[in-house]
Amino acid sequence: MSTTVAQERVYNFSPGPAVLPVSVLQQAQRDLMCLPGYGMSILEMSHRAPGFLDILAAAKHNLKELLRIPDNYKIIFLQGGSRLQFSMIPMNLLRGQSQPADYLITGSWSKMALDEAKREGLARVAWDGKSTNYDRLPTLADWQPNKDAPYTYLCSNETIQGVQFDTDFDLKSPVVADCSSDFLHRPLDVAKYGLIYACAQKNAGPAGVTAVIIREDLLARSQDNLPGYMNYTGHVKEDSLYNTPPTFAIYLMGLVLRWLKDDVGGLEKMHAFNQEKAKLLYDVIDGSGGYFKGHAQPANRSLMNVTFRLPSEDLEKKFCKEGEKRGLDGLKGHRSVGGVRASIYNAMPLEGVKQLAEFMKEFQQQNG
Amino acid sequence: MSTTVAQERVYNFSPGPAVLPVSVLQQAQRDLMCLPGYGMSILEMSHRAPGFLDILAAAKHNLKELLRIPDNYKIIFLQGGSRLQFSMIPMNLLRGQSQPADYLITGSWSKMALDEAKREGLARVAWDGKSTNYDRLPTLADWQPNKDAPYTYLCSNETIQGVQFDTDFDLKSPVVADCSSDFLHRPLDVAKYGLIYACAQKNAGPAGVTAVIIREDLLARSQDNLPGYMNYTGHVKEDSLYNTPPTFAIYLMGLVLRWLKDDVGGLEKMHAFNQEKAKLLYDVIDGSGGYFKGHAQPANRSLMNVTFRLPSEDLEKKFCKEGEKRGLDGLKGHRSVGGVRASIYNAMPLEGVKQLAEFMKEFQQQNG
Repeated sequence: MSTTVAQERVYNFSPGPAVLPVSVLQQAQRDLMCLPGYGMSILEMSHRAPGFLDILAAAKHNLKELLRIPDNYKIIFLQGGSRLQFSMIPMNLLRGQSQPADYLITGSWSKMALDEAKREGLARVAWDGKSTNYDRLPTLADWQPNKDAPYTYLCSNETIQGVQFDTDFDLKSPVVADCSSDFLHRPLDVAKYGLIYACAQKNAGPAGVTAVIIREDLLARSQDNLPGYMNYTGHVKEDSLYNTPPTFAIYLMGLVLRWLKDDVGGLEKMHAFNQEKAKLLYDVIDGSGGYFKGHAQPANRSLMNVTFRLPSEDLEKKFCKEGEKRGLDGLKGHRSVGGVRASIYNAMPLEGVKQLAEFMKEFQQQNG
Repeated sequence: MSTTVAQERVYNFSPGPAVLPVSVLQQAQRDLMCLPGYGMSILEMSHRAPGFLDILAAAKHNLKELLRIPDNYKIIFLQGGSRLQFSMIPMNLLRGQSQPADYLITGSWSKMALDEAKREGLARVAWDGKSTNYDRLPTLADWQPNKDAPYTYLCSNETIQGVQFDTDFDLKSPVVADCSSDFLHRPLDVAKYGLIYACAQKNAGPAGVTAVIIREDLLARSQDNLPGYMNYTGHVKEDSLYNTPPTFAIYLMGLVLRWLKDDVGGLEKMHAFNQEKAKLLYDVIDGSGGYFKGHAQPANRSLMNVTFRLPSEDLEKKFCKEGEKRGLDGLKGHRSVGGVRASIYNAMPLEGVKQLAEFMKEFQQQNG
């Protein structure tokens, strides 16, 4: 079956929902009608049934192990994606605080998060990459951290601009990180964060589930008058069963976590593989004599989203169209910035990236 | 394949997530690796790709057709389940209003909705079934509707108590209905409602997606300062793509809608079938000489959740355990009220209900 399937399948460079490991899809397909031993589909199983509770516990366990999450952190699985986190974070962590939260504005997603924070409380722009069109990221020398800030917010990888932090900041204020688009792509020093969250649909599963990892002591900030679903404490107390969780999405995320652990061999190996894949594309860009222009400054290039322009918009359109014909799908840049974007998340096979690199070189030869 | 699968599968009487149509599961399984013509799994497909936009449009179209939704209503698909709607409804429809909203408290779910509404504004208990332990529902003669209420809230079916409205109220104030547990089980006169919502995991699909049907004019009440995700207007404006929607859950709901339309033949037929199934169980209860005691008053019995007690808790435990051995799964009543609950949603086959009815009679004979 897998051979036929591999032939049918394109290489999907979509920014998310995005490519998933073939072995994960195969297992989900095999068990979709009937989860072995349970007599029903995971899609039909009560969230309070032992079968699902085992799946939930295993997902938490494997996430904890993969990221080496310290014991003083809680893991919950929520709905609503990053957008809901944009509001939940300030509702829980900023209300009742006297100092403003610090926001690092490094691209489209952190800017949206800031806009939502301002509805809930005081938020300060600690750094803003606007003047260079978000092509670079700050180092610790580039902004003045407020050690008394309720938290410092950052987006670890900006999918639209293709810039990515490759370091874990050591700040006095709790770092809150949107890791939606590069979650589990490398090991993190979780102890340096107050809260990490990631919607699954880039690196960790399908759309519809968001993992939140929160340091226990921060839960004390959540006020009782928050809307029930928006309060982290209820979800922690009920171990992600405050209401019916997105059971299938958690199940599939669990399969991805197992793939990372058993098939890939952990996040160090995943990181090395991601570096290898990204280098293939950045090398073509750098060797193109300016034909391909990368958006991000080399020091801040994303391993997940490789963003670049061609000499003209017409050539960019032609590039995406011809790519699609070759089975290289989803290369169009975000509608807000244009250009080309190759999203090469964890599950993108090396072969897909190699074919794209080859295609880029050929395209330049024929359209240079 | 289907024969083997049918043998392996139990009859799942779980209150939700719940049984799904076998043909829906089979189609999802067949196409899980590769949606025909798209070269990728629906789990991997961008929410902005034509493939998904077609799925979204078809789901809306079929929902509109099945429920005969008038043109002045908008349909959106959200995350967060009923719990998030408990808050979104008052945040959008109650903020800025001078009168209290009316809440009909008919069981556990409407009570929880009231508690959340009180956090956001004024809410009046228009009727409360507490004095008879939520075994009955009000008629229009039983409460004094406030014609100036911003809305009147009700839960069309209380899964825990097993009571269900079988009528559409004609009120001056917009009726807001939580139809999560009986959505699409009968035709509704949508024009009598201001807002109808349903999380999918009982009658309409898997956990992780909530359909909201809202009368256009009510959207004018949503204030700009709401948290972004909590504002209905953004979701309507972006046609459920305000953020990445739960694509797979919407896809599966779309398959269920098509099953209702093409295989079942519409909601009138679905309703007749549901009446037939429920009658089988209520007849056993009524013919048991008091051995099985239904919780709901006969006039308000739910077609979806048949709740009853046995002479003792020990017998109830034995009943559920023996049922499970026969492949009749998930019969335990909600932990807050005990007893037995048989959830017989749209997708529960007649054969499953027949086997349960048979088992009830046998159990009484052997343990009477």
